[in-house]
Amino acid sequence: MQSLVAISLTLILAAAFTGAQKPHPCKSPPLMVGRLSALNPKGHVAAYERFSYDALERRIRVRALVFVDNSTMYEEALLLFREGVLYEIFHQNQTCKRSELKEPFQPIEVPHDAQLLGQLILGSSSAPGSGLLVNSWEKSVPEIKTKFFMTFTEFACIPVSIASHTENTGWTMTSFYDLVIGIEDPDEFIPPPFCEKAEVNHKSAKSLFNFLG
Amino acid sequence: MQSLVAISLTLILAAAFTGAQKPHPCKSPPLMVGRLSALNPKGHVAAYERFSYDALERRIRVRALVFVDNSTMYEEALLLFREGVLYEIFHQNQTCKRSELKEPFQPIEVPHDAQLLGQLILGSSSAPGSGLLVNSWEKSVPEIKTKFFMTFTEFACIPVSIASHTENTGWTMTSFYDLVIGIEDPDEFIPPPFCEKAEVNHKSAKSLFNFLG
Repeated sequence: MQSLVAISLTLILAAAFTGAQKPHPCKSPPLMVGRLSALNPKGHVAAYERFSYDALERRIRVRALVFVDNSTMYEEALLLFREGVLYEIFHQNQTCKRSELKEPFQPIEVPHDAQLLGQLILGSSSAPGSGLLVNSWEKSVPEIKTKFFMTFTEFACIPVSIASHTENTGWTMTSFYDLVIGIEDPDEFIPPPFCEKAEVNHKSAKSLFNFLG
Repeated sequence: MQSLVAISLTLILAAAFTGAQKPHPCKSPPLMVGRLSALNPKGHVAAYERFSYDALERRIRVRALVFVDNSTMYEEALLLFREGVLYEIFHQNQTCKRSELKEPFQPIEVPHDAQLLGQLILGSSSAPGSGLLVNSWEKSVPEIKTKFFMTFTEFACIPVSIASHTENTGWTMTSFYDLVIGIEDPDEFIPPPFCEKAEVNHKSAKSLFNFLG
């Protein structure tokens, strides 16, 4: 079996180098579930999230453990961009906060005007199953004084990491993992029944969930 | 061919889940060449390195672009741990600085007493060639008040990333890529002829090269 694995890896890599001579910006699959970890050392914030992502209907469900300084919070939210609504969900006491979601939906993708930094292999191409071919991209957004560095897989355009830098907030590093193409449970995108009588929150509740954008 | 790739990926993943029920600390291949990037936001230091690593003879050759605040430096060094000697090499003017290398050689490995945080897939297992199975480990070293978070591939024990945290220096994130098992050019480990009459440097010159350790 080992030789079959070796042959197949060779084929995979051969496909990489013949099929994609120059990497192009790409869109990630529109339906995904997965996990991410995010770290902002300057703000002393770290987060572990499990998310469901539906770019067709423009909605995201997030469950997050957020560490700020020495405190830990569990956060759960449903972002319905088409309706412009964000629900913060508190299962423990069956309550909800409903806020207006003003920013536009930001699909997971390599922006069409991103600059290719290079193609590289995470791990190694010397042994079967020990390497991942990825493309690394950079984009500056002068309006918000932010630089983005993005890494996506060459095959299937799966996000691997996104680092951003602004003068105010410093570096934020987001790593994606355990991504599965498709949605496991579409019910996740429907607000729980107790959200019908949600308390309306007038302040923006975005900041904790912008690691995806 | 696509189906062959799909079958092979299934085999690779099947091997992962049958052959390695519980991941164990592992040693990386003793001979490797590769690249790494390292970022220490608190110290405003970033580095891109190309390294050759020989754990059998305990020697490392490093070529680094180091960014400190707004200045950029090119650094080249040869670390011979067995002899306890570090050469800083300046090709431009054919000179060398020779320093005593006091610290012990630290092989690239998951320490035997590291705690498994979990097994995860960088990218996705949903599409061929889009995922990498890795194990994530943690180790605290109270003597130096440092926590290490390490990610190595399940197959072949290739380093993918090492993050460390100390109160003084904050977070340092090191990412490895383009690793190849083996040494391309053993001559790299022999000091250039002009290093024979190297100026002796009495201060430690280690700090820039400890991303590997």
